[in-house]
Amino acid sequence: MIKLKMGMIGGGIDSFIGDVHRKAASLDGMIDLVCGAFSSTAERSITSGKELFLPEDRCYNNFEEMILAEKKLPEKERMDFVAIVTPNHLHFAPAKMALENGFHVVCDKPMTLTLEEAIELEKVVKSTGLLFALTHNYPGSPMVKQARAMVKNGDLGKIRKVQVQYLQGWLATSVEKTGQKQAAWRVDPEKSGIGGALGDIGTHAENLVEYVTGLQIEELAADLGKFGADRVLDDDGNILLRLENGAKGTMSFSQIAVGEENNLAIRVYGEKGSLEWSQENPNQLITRWLDQPKVIYTPNGNNLYPDSLGASRIPAGHPEGYLEAFANVYKHFAIHLHAKLSDKEIENPDYPTVSDGVRGMKFIYASVESDKKNSAWIKLE
Amino acid sequence: MIKLKMGMIGGGIDSFIGDVHRKAASLDGMIDLVCGAFSSTAERSITSGKELFLPEDRCYNNFEEMILAEKKLPEKERMDFVAIVTPNHLHFAPAKMALENGFHVVCDKPMTLTLEEAIELEKVVKSTGLLFALTHNYPGSPMVKQARAMVKNGDLGKIRKVQVQYLQGWLATSVEKTGQKQAAWRVDPEKSGIGGALGDIGTHAENLVEYVTGLQIEELAADLGKFGADRVLDDDGNILLRLENGAKGTMSFSQIAVGEENNLAIRVYGEKGSLEWSQENPNQLITRWLDQPKVIYTPNGNNLYPDSLGASRIPAGHPEGYLEAFANVYKHFAIHLHAKLSDKEIENPDYPTVSDGVRGMKFIYASVESDKKNSAWIKLE
Amino acid sequence: MIKLKMGMIGGGIDSFIGDVHRKAASLDGMIDLVCGAFSSTAERSITSGKELFLPEDRCYNNFEEMILAEKKLPEKERMDFVAIVTPNHLHFAPAKMALENGFHVVCDKPMTLTLEEAIELEKVVKSTGLLFALTHNYPGSPMVKQARAMVKNGDLGKIRKVQVQYLQGWLATSVEKTGQKQAAWRVDPEKSGIGGALGDIGTHAENLVEYVTGLQIEELAADLGKFGADRVLDDDGNILLRLENGAKGTMSFSQIAVGEENNLAIRVYGEKGSLEWSQENPNQLITRWLDQPKVIYTPNGNNLYPDSLGASRIPAGHPEGYLEAFANVYKHFAIHLHAKLSDKEIENPDYPTVSDGVRGMKFIYASVESDKKNSAWIKLE
Amino acid sequence: MIKLKMGMIGGGIDSFIGDVHRKAASLDGMIDLVCGAFSSTAERSITSGKELFLPEDRCYNNFEEMILAEKKLPEKERMDFVAIVTPNHLHFAPAKMALENGFHVVCDKPMTLTLEEAIELEKVVKSTGLLFALTHNYPGSPMVKQARAMVKNGDLGKIRKVQVQYLQGWLATSVEKTGQKQAAWRVDPEKSGIGGALGDIGTHAENLVEYVTGLQIEELAADLGKFGADRVLDDDGNILLRLENGAKGTMSFSQIAVGEENNLAIRVYGEKGSLEWSQENPNQLITRWLDQPKVIYTPNGNNLYPDSLGASRIPAGHPEGYLEAFANVYKHFAIHLHAKLSDKEIENPDYPTVSDGVRGMKFIYASVESDKKNSAWIKLE
Repeated sequence: MIKLKMGMIGGGIDSFIGDVHRKAASLDGMIDLVCGAFSSTAERSITSGKELFLPEDRCYNNFEEMILAEKKLPEKERMDFVAIVTPNHLHFAPAKMALENGFHVVCDKPMTLTLEEAIELEKVVKSTGLLFALTHNYPGSPMVKQARAMVKNGDLGKIRKVQVQYLQGWLATSVEKTGQKQAAWRVDPEKSGIGGALGDIGTHAENLVEYVTGLQIEELAADLGKFGADRVLDDDGNILLRLENGAKGTMSFSQIAVGEENNLAIRVYGEKGSLEWSQENPNQLITRWLDQPKVIYTPNGNNLYPDSLGASRIPAGHPEGYLEAFANVYKHFAIHLHAKLSDKEIENPDYPTVSDGVRGMKFIYASVESDKKNSAWIKLE
Repeated sequence: MIKLKMGMIGGGIDSFIGDVHRKAASLDGMIDLVCGAFSSTAERSITSGKELFLPEDRCYNNFEEMILAEKKLPEKERMDFVAIVTPNHLHFAPAKMALENGFHVVCDKPMTLTLEEAIELEKVVKSTGLLFALTHNYPGSPMVKQARAMVKNGDLGKIRKVQVQYLQGWLATSVEKTGQKQAAWRVDPEKSGIGGALGDIGTHAENLVEYVTGLQIEELAADLGKFGADRVLDDDGNILLRLENGAKGTMSFSQIAVGEENNLAIRVYGEKGSLEWSQENPNQLITRWLDQPKVIYTPNGNNLYPDSLGASRIPAGHPEGYLEAFANVYKHFAIHLHAKLSDKEIENPDYPTVSDGVRGMKFIYASVESDKKNSAWIKLE
Repeated sequence: MIKLKMGMIGGGIDSFIGDVHRKAASLDGMIDLVCGAFSSTAERSITSGKELFLPEDRCYNNFEEMILAEKKLPEKERMDFVAIVTPNHLHFAPAKMALENGFHVVCDKPMTLTLEEAIELEKVVKSTGLLFALTHNYPGSPMVKQARAMVKNGDLGKIRKVQVQYLQGWLATSVEKTGQKQAAWRVDPEKSGIGGALGDIGTHAENLVEYVTGLQIEELAADLGKFGADRVLDDDGNILLRLENGAKGTMSFSQIAVGEENNLAIRVYGEKGSLEWSQENPNQLITRWLDQPKVIYTPNGNNLYPDSLGASRIPAGHPEGYLEAFANVYKHFAIHLHAKLSDKEIENPDYPTVSDGVRGMKFIYASVESDKKNSAWIKLE
Repeated sequence: MIKLKMGMIGGGIDSFIGDVHRKAASLDGMIDLVCGAFSSTAERSITSGKELFLPEDRCYNNFEEMILAEKKLPEKERMDFVAIVTPNHLHFAPAKMALENGFHVVCDKPMTLTLEEAIELEKVVKSTGLLFALTHNYPGSPMVKQARAMVKNGDLGKIRKVQVQYLQGWLATSVEKTGQKQAAWRVDPEKSGIGGALGDIGTHAENLVEYVTGLQIEELAADLGKFGADRVLDDDGNILLRLENGAKGTMSFSQIAVGEENNLAIRVYGEKGSLEWSQENPNQLITRWLDQPKVIYTPNGNNLYPDSLGASRIPAGHPEGYLEAFANVYKHFAIHLHAKLSDKEIENPDYPTVSDGVRGMKFIYASVESDKKNSAWIKLE
């Protein structure tokens, strides 16, 4: 067996998320970065590649060049898949081209700029039969996997209520006007699409709800806010949720919640039990019960489901965090890809796919429509 | 100076809230219980009174008898005020009669069965000029007072976002069918009014938002749930909020949130800072800031506003809880009443009044109307 | 049945602990304050009494006068017991005189100035057959009672290890030189005895260990610190513990631990399970197990032992604190005294007695001796 | 610049700590694993190497063979340093041989089996001038670095008091008799040395105290426990500490603390402020102050010192854990080694060295001696 070979699109040095993808991909020693089109300028792309110990001839000027050049390399040498870590408006074209040229894809979220692109991309993935992973990283956490398994196994009974929040404060002031690149593209509809915070973090919250409960959001009623001066996209939102099984809930997200760092948290209430998880304190799962005191699960601790145990790398009490959860997306994708390259048919071991990406885009579109209609209920189909 | 004399309506032994009122009233040594109409049956009323060390002739068969009999007693002997601790449908009549016979009133929440009653009661209070306290106890907590003072003094800047929740799980199953008296009247619209959990705990959440922010809820969009079998009143609710200054928010309350005990919590986000308080861990106020690390205030600790310091009885690090916060309502009412009985004019030292009661009823009515209209936005006026 | 009548020695207005005793005694409506010798000056004593709504003729110039005068009153009128809330050097004389004149006693801790006094007082209590309660308040907490019951019932298995700490920071600077009365007498060996922080808070830690584990501290090795300028008594200490069953442990206490408020916490490890409780967050008991995830108990919550349930006044999720725990000492004392006054023989319902006071003094003496011998192991007998 | 090349001694598949070292070394993309002597049997060594994608000719039968063979390889190809991840008794020989053959060393802790070995190894390191890193990983945490920087900069004032604990429960039962390999060698003095839990985790606690305070432990008084059946080495310990500046403290460690996972925690109290950090919740540093409320620092958050900021990889609110802290040891070692290989003289960027290893061995020896002398005070020199 040999290591999988990754090419990267975007993610030049100084990029936040590119570095995260590289660390996540390398953590388990199953993936090597072999090439990249790291930047919109050839020079920056090469500089980035060199810092990453890549040979210059594998640092490309743009993704088209990379895909075509790599395709011509011998199979043992060329990349197996691309990781797309660009802003939203630059997801669709490289993903489609990579797939159409035989390369598997790992893509950052939200999946595309528009819902139309998302639906088209789903078709391309299906028609090519290649693998596509969307990097919703939070389901990679061992305690989120335990939460999902508990719901799936009926421990909580029928789900009745969900609360999810994703609160950040980094856009509380107009940092996009200070040259902060991360902020600049996120508040620009040309690059972000029709959702601001909605697309950037709301989709994480939506994905987490559907992943943990195993239920789809059927309809929603949204009230979006634009608190930052001159912003055209939302930087805050409050949403009522109704799930397919009759459960109800709330979602609140914000990038103007002063002082909040990355406060993603979920609570799920069933007929028999309930659970609570928070991303900033990820190494515990709080559960509550009709007739029992509160029980706190910990990664690799007592009484966990196999899916959760499989997501930990080190013994109980040794905290794992954001990168490790992110790495689990890559790990599960790598396991799937290894099997595929060995002509073994296995099920998706547990990473988000193009369908999750389409759900995310539908969520964005329904939320924006609801907000325009003064919070009318809108279905996600 | 002599102690204030309290008569109680409702609150026989085995009543939860009657005992709470008595403990709260007695904690600071300013109030003596002197008489009561504790129960709907004369015998139970006397039994209760005896256990409370009252002479039999001050244990009355009903509130009418008590009010008339006490009125005839010499001023030095007769009660100064009544505490009404009955279910909702038995608030209005005794409150009105007490006021009209010259007795000040402390009344449990929600204030009345209907909005009409609430509005009429407000008129009676104003016309008699007597004191009326509504026992929203959570504003009595030292950290809630610190929160309010910080907002009032502009420490947080303009308020943009509010999250409030009040989660309980004790009605997750049909306990009202098992002879549980507390549950039975709460799910009965004849006794509770048009709101179930909405009136019982939603009003606490509403009051807390308006108390801490100093802002009125202007309109709301509600989605109420009835998860318990055969319930006609809500036992769960999710509400979008818009405050008078343009801030937005969410409220979620539930009595079917399995395993939750009494989880009232609030977060308020301004332009410069934010704060977070939880009733189950009441002895800290978490604050977050644009350019500073998180700061945690504690009761009687460093750097508090006077309103907060005045609400603590013991040194920092010595936890106070539910009863102490409740007792602060009585303490502030007692201070006001002492002044009034001494013909001194002072401002309300800081206890909820009949106006807060009217706000609560408007909140209930707007929520039910919004829910009927599939979560349309409804104004609170 | 009538209310019990309490006379107070010490505790004039502005006293911290006097006010705590009065609130604790009044909370459950079983005890009335009827008289007091509140201060060393007659004038202050009367002023204090008036603020407490007492008639002037029940405000005495000193404890001798009070005991003798009350003894002459008719049985229905005179006090049933005295509460002694003076500094340590003023515990023994009034306690002894009260007992010898037929009055039961509630006394603050540490019990006496010297070990000799403690041993003599124990004899007086035994010879008079009267009740004597020592106000170690922390065992009054519902979660401490649950902890004790779990150990007693063998849930944790044989105890192997104990950690206890009591950390405060209020003597970190020389506040005794600024006119702070609470500090002044505590650093003065004439008034405090041979232990500083050792007697003031170390005894609470010692008592908590023995109460929760049901095991006596057999021997200890102490290293005391005097960090405040010019202090002659310890303001900090670290102690190795060996319990009678072979368990080992540590104790750390301090009044110079900057920023700590009242951080008393205990951990107990047995062969099968362990538990953790913290006074500043008293409404949870954390338990850990060989083969189960962590379980968190809450007052009046699921699966508690009767002793714990009996110590709560309000439903789960409604926090009780320091005063309520303190009030449980008075409540249990009052139940015992009621029975005794009705000539019923009952066991001590669960309040600390003169024997706990002797243990505390032995702990102080052993610690000081060990410290003088450079932390040699000293037995507590 | 090219990647550093690492050879590994020990750490075959199924080894806990070997995998940790590999993940830590690879996280930042600066180090490649190029060879290994992973196991005591040649076959297992090769199997392990293959799973790690190594060519068979770089999988050696033992460390002697590896060191000699690698030495003969061209400089561009041969390993730059060895990582020694064997049980304690197999640290000294390979470390010495590697150094004497020109290879830099990363070594797990405790550094050696005996104090004599430690002192000799320190001499070898000094005489060869090569780099030696000891993998005390906890100082790699961003909040520990902030703690150290705050002490160093005098924010806390003169240090007066330290509490440190390291509690685990995995040896609460006799798992060493069930074939658990991790347990088996740890309870065997032939492989562990004279300290059991003392060497395994006590040294971490000792190192953390000295790292954070910048002060040496001058003397200690230890009471060690052997609670597990038939154990000859300690599995529990309680120690009084005196630091070189007059500060006092306690240490408690255990591997029989049932239910504890990896509970390393430290508190440091100075004259002006104090701090608290816990390994299981590593992404916060709690600080307390004379005249300010509690302040909580978070990694990459507001107001941190540069040393702390440099230890984070991702934005505030994105938790990093055990592996990331461990990786910081490798990262700082790699930066130092890069510089050295480029003939640049730089200071140790901040990783533990052979001197820390000697301190750890002195701590073990002093503790065992003190315990034998019934907890007499023993100096660490």
